[in-house]
Amino acid sequence: MSLQLTILGFNSALPTAFTHPTAQLLNIAERHFLIDCGEGTQVQLRKAKAKFNRINHIFISHLHGDHVFGLIGLISTFQLLGRDTPLHIHGPKGIDEFISTQLRLTESNNSFEIIFNELHTKESVLVFEDDKVEVYSIPLNHRVYTNGYLFREKPKPRKLNMDTIVEFPEIEICDYQNLKNGKDFTLESGKIIPNDYLTFEAQKSLSYAFCSDTKYKPDIVPIIKNVDVLYHESTFLHELKDLAVYTGHTTAKEAALIAKQANVKKLILGHFSNRYHDYKPLLIEAQQEFPHTVLPELLKTIKIEIIS
Amino acid sequence: MSLQLTILGFNSALPTAFTHPTAQLLNIAERHFLIDCGEGTQVQLRKAKAKFNRINHIFISHLHGDHVFGLIGLISTFQLLGRDTPLHIHGPKGIDEFISTQLRLTESNNSFEIIFNELHTKESVLVFEDDKVEVYSIPLNHRVYTNGYLFREKPKPRKLNMDTIVEFPEIEICDYQNLKNGKDFTLESGKIIPNDYLTFEAQKSLSYAFCSDTKYKPDIVPIIKNVDVLYHESTFLHELKDLAVYTGHTTAKEAALIAKQANVKKLILGHFSNRYHDYKPLLIEAQQEFPHTVLPELLKTIKIEIIS
Repeated sequence: MSLQLTILGFNSALPTAFTHPTAQLLNIAERHFLIDCGEGTQVQLRKAKAKFNRINHIFISHLHGDHVFGLIGLISTFQLLGRDTPLHIHGPKGIDEFISTQLRLTESNNSFEIIFNELHTKESVLVFEDDKVEVYSIPLNHRVYTNGYLFREKPKPRKLNMDTIVEFPEIEICDYQNLKNGKDFTLESGKIIPNDYLTFEAQKSLSYAFCSDTKYKPDIVPIIKNVDVLYHESTFLHELKDLAVYTGHTTAKEAALIAKQANVKKLILGHFSNRYHDYKPLLIEAQQEFPHTVLPELLKTIKIEIIS
Repeated sequence: MSLQLTILGFNSALPTAFTHPTAQLLNIAERHFLIDCGEGTQVQLRKAKAKFNRINHIFISHLHGDHVFGLIGLISTFQLLGRDTPLHIHGPKGIDEFISTQLRLTESNNSFEIIFNELHTKESVLVFEDDKVEVYSIPLNHRVYTNGYLFREKPKPRKLNMDTIVEFPEIEICDYQNLKNGKDFTLESGKIIPNDYLTFEAQKSLSYAFCSDTKYKPDIVPIIKNVDVLYHESTFLHELKDLAVYTGHTTAKEAALIAKQANVKKLILGHFSNRYHDYKPLLIEAQQEFPHTVLPELLKTIKIEIIS
């Protein structure tokens, strides 16, 4: 099992000839999730050789252009490609009207259903789940209503230890699911065989947290505790802290403090102000607080694997 | 004087890693007009080193994504760049709601005024004029309400022939404007000096016609008669005529027939279907009807100059 994150764009504000606004493609438990969709995202997806028809869920953090202006173009392309499976769009209240108005005025007769899941609470809520994955919102504090997202594999079943199971002929195949779920086994004699004698540890569940855009907001720490990878915006160096507060953003130092407090395994910085052409100082500033910090790399896939 | 046309994108439908949807930058009499604005146009404008603050008028042909999805991003960038001068957007009915809804939902407080000029008639009408330029709509026939645009320098004043004027001491400076406007001069004796003895021909007025998207529509010929440059869509080769009719497009042969009938000086093809990677057959097909046909070249500026 692995978690794969491809960063399609990590700059703030306006796209330029060489920078791309926020968009990420996450593969978690073979679910392909698109996170944010700034202008030009569909071209970045093509460059990343992404399979468009595998994207069934899109998560939008907030309705600022550099996070959402590429969405209508992507939907339009899905249609031109003959998509016929539903597309789920999770995002802030208003995203339905935002997209539906454009579809109506461009007289688009979509060949597929778009199912909007509009968020409005300021609490962390379950946004999506299936049998393998769950996604929670991470309430952020920006100039407009904004959520980050926590993507987490569900707890996996424990693995059967066939070497010990065969010692007990009473254990039948129909009992295996209970063992996988962690239950002890009670023999007819009344003797209890502890689960950890009959099974091995379950494979670890991987997790990823996306936090952009936001002011420094330490109360998200309990939500993102111990995640494998955290992407946290770091629009400015800490010397521009006042500007960060004014514009509703975080500094590189603060992003690292969040990572440290949340005990994450790896921090990826991003959403850099266009004033920075060299991102090294942002990395150095963050690494002073949290050494396991890296810079985002455009179109490169970060792979977190479990060696079981 | 010159007319300069920079093609920012000329492909139909979806943008890809190497193709760009319709957008053009026209400089006519030092007016900088943007024509259509598919997704990614602002990046193409940067690559063309365009001066964003000189664009005061945008002309949108129709509300299909490959002609308009880049507009909201460009407006957003104008705002981030601190624009404070009004922006005029000419386009089909609905474009105000299309843009205004997005601005409202992204909570954009524009620092500049946007003035929408919504078109709805199926006649050719004057869309814009100032002292040097006039722009007319060219009613097209596509799947949705669509206009092309005719950009024309206004007739220029005739040039004074000082060598002949000095033969008549009665002609004073205050008479010059009448002479420039083509009037004859009447001496006190009652003798009429014909204007063409006192003036030279006015400099030619340049013109450009943009026609996309449309079915073959020969009734536009009188509107675009004798233009210096015609851009006409040619989505398909003529062997796909049926598909052209079905999708509301023109073939390369038909685009050339329009150019021939309208007696234009130069035809630029464009809006090619993504099925074509080599555009040479489209060019050859058109040149058989109209030799002065060229292919569009991305980010290259075509310059029409008057040698006076």
